Amino acid sequence: MATMILPTESEVKSTSFSPQLRMKAGDGVESYARNSVPQADFMSHILPTVYDMIDRVNLPQEGVVVVADLGCASGLNGIRNVDSVIERIRSRFVGTEGPEFLVYFQDLPGCDFNNLFQNLFSSPNSVTAEVPPRPYFAAGVPGSFYGRLFPASSLHFVLSSFALHWLSKIPDAVYDKTSPAYNGEHTDLHLSSISTVDAYAEQAHRNLTSFLAARAAEMAKGGTMLLVFGLREGYYPYRVGPTLELQERIWNELVSEGLVEPELRDSHNNHVYFRTLGEVEKALSGFSSYFTVERRDITPSPLSSSFARSPASSSEEIAQRITSVFTAAGGDLLESHFGELSTRLFLQRYKEALIEGFNNKTLVEDLPNSRKHLVLVLTRK
Amino acid sequence: MATMILPTESEVKSTSFSPQLRMKAGDGVESYARNSVPQADFMSHILPTVYDMIDRVNLPQEGVVVVADLGCASGLNGIRNVDSVIERIRSRFVGTEGPEFLVYFQDLPGCDFNNLFQNLFSSPNSVTAEVPPRPYFAAGVPGSFYGRLFPASSLHFVLSSFALHWLSKIPDAVYDKTSPAYNGEHTDLHLSSISTVDAYAEQAHRNLTSFLAARAAEMAKGGTMLLVFGLREGYYPYRVGPTLELQERIWNELVSEGLVEPELRDSHNNHVYFRTLGEVEKALSGFSSYFTVERRDITPSPLSSSFARSPASSSEEIAQRITSVFTAAGGDLLESHFGELSTRLFLQRYKEALIEGFNNKTLVEDLPNSRKHLVLVLTRK
Repeated sequence: MATMILPTESEVKSTSFSPQLRMKAGDGVESYARNSVPQADFMSHILPTVYDMIDRVNLPQEGVVVVADLGCASGLNGIRNVDSVIERIRSRFVGTEGPEFLVYFQDLPGCDFNNLFQNLFSSPNSVTAEVPPRPYFAAGVPGSFYGRLFPASSLHFVLSSFALHWLSKIPDAVYDKTSPAYNGEHTDLHLSSISTVDAYAEQAHRNLTSFLAARAAEMAKGGTMLLVFGLREGYYPYRVGPTLELQERIWNELVSEGLVEPELRDSHNNHVYFRTLGEVEKALSGFSSYFTVERRDITPSPLSSSFARSPASSSEEIAQRITSVFTAAGGDLLESHFGELSTRLFLQRYKEALIEGFNNKTLVEDLPNSRKHLVLVLTRK
Repeated sequence: MATMILPTESEVKSTSFSPQLRMKAGDGVESYARNSVPQADFMSHILPTVYDMIDRVNLPQEGVVVVADLGCASGLNGIRNVDSVIERIRSRFVGTEGPEFLVYFQDLPGCDFNNLFQNLFSSPNSVTAEVPPRPYFAAGVPGSFYGRLFPASSLHFVLSSFALHWLSKIPDAVYDKTSPAYNGEHTDLHLSSISTVDAYAEQAHRNLTSFLAARAAEMAKGGTMLLVFGLREGYYPYRVGPTLELQERIWNELVSEGLVEPELRDSHNNHVYFRTLGEVEKALSGFSSYFTVERRDITPSPLSSSFARSPASSSEEIAQRITSVFTAAGGDLLESHFGELSTRLFLQRYKEALIEGFNNKTLVEDLPNSRKHLVLVLTRK
């Protein structure tokens, strides 16, 4: 496993990121805004469990309380999470004039901020347009959260859900045919060499330490940060469950049938990397003088929780729900690499293979145990 | 003329505005981003003349300096203006660590913020994506600047160019057939009754006082605000020059030829209102305990300055330049009311009528004198 690497000053300041990295824009049938119900449900259950920590955040009694949602995407999920947080914080000031509230909604510049802002100004609870729809000032912040985005010591509560497992870039070595980390023929990591996984781990470590360094600078003393992101069990082999691992088989089939160029498959790699708890702790250990770990819970993934809460009635429904969530989050990235037609073909095949696998029991996934998420609460010392 | 009306609390908090109000999105051939060269040139000449005032803005020596561009639209104009202001402010801190900088780019939620953010991250001066393209944190703020948008006492320098002559709404009475202010048959104000102009003046006064009240709350003590917006000479009749006034004649022709429904023309009114200096001073007088007027210059309009700086070689060129600037700023609003086809027809006819008028000398406009702009610099006491 890679040795610990702290980010350089220029990395923390960097705005570098893959420009194709974005959730499906707009609010159409395939949009992330409409296909992230499991994530929304998950957060609506997680947030109340951290209310006691929100109640202890060190806040100014007047002036402005600043909340940031990092990697908010363009839909209502981020807005709803923030609404819950603000409502909870405001309850501490009932009967007093109290501070004002400012919320930063942050995502990469390619995010559909237009849609986000439309959502901000439409509210089912708003009786008339004359009434401000939300009790806070709102701003959108384009940029990479792996660099500095906000003034020093300015943030009181930071939230980031389902975003930190997206790497800012695929490590160069993974594309380098002369490197032991070269990952040609693989589109994912479960069959990859340990060198490939090491290269990913190193990039993931750089990203997480850059993130923590930037937030250490930006958070006010006593401020609190809630981070939710994907986690895997063991370091090697890299396993995240058979339904995700099935995808590489589909790409290989499309290549062997001559429908997708082998070079395209070889040059595709996954932007998502689920860390192990050990990797997260290694990154955190470099920031022990900045952050106190208040909570570190491992939970089943949003998809798993979603099926536990509202079970699917058929293999078709399971397959549809898995495919929809995957398409909304990763579809644009696939399209930018493979093109629209190949991506459609892949998604169709993927869904069919899921249905077939569930029907004939060759695909058995213990979802609650195969993929996890980490719920991490940090306080700025 | 209407009596002085101060905004109510709910008006200052209000986020109400006409949803169609926006400049042409994107960066296509008709976009505001590409058809606002006169405005950009104008500001590039105005800004250096206020550098002495920027040098005197009361700024924190550490922490964060906050700049807001109100009504920034989606192109590079606003970004370039802000870049100039920030560069000037930063020169005060050369050789010291100094404060950090945060810039709010504000416009209505319908503004193309996606395009604005793309522009923010593309810079001809940026050698590599690893270098942050701009020396400030940037955030987009969707909302109406006629209401509160920012935390109290948080803004050090506020800039708003070519935005304050856009009213938040057309006064209701102007649409009311039973009102003396009813403006049916007119699409502009130069032939309207004094009651119509009074109704507009009242709305414009409400808007300007709401704007000043919101900024009085948001600006830090010693902060400075530069406002540039359209101005007319006399109160009544409302005159802004023959090239603009020609537009009403074109709509009437289209109606009389049966190409546009008379009801559509009757229900169309101009969102732009050029105040008189007297109207501006009346609004300012209500805020004398909040703002010092540092400068109050009347200048020719951006279009006029543009022709003075780079003269047109033919009637066709004059007509094209006038039509392009008008289309970029007002085209979307016309389309949302008249539909795309009628708007195209109107713009074509307008351009032809301009050419004909210039060629046969029936259209003679003393541009430097017919339309003015006000350059107003206020300091928060």
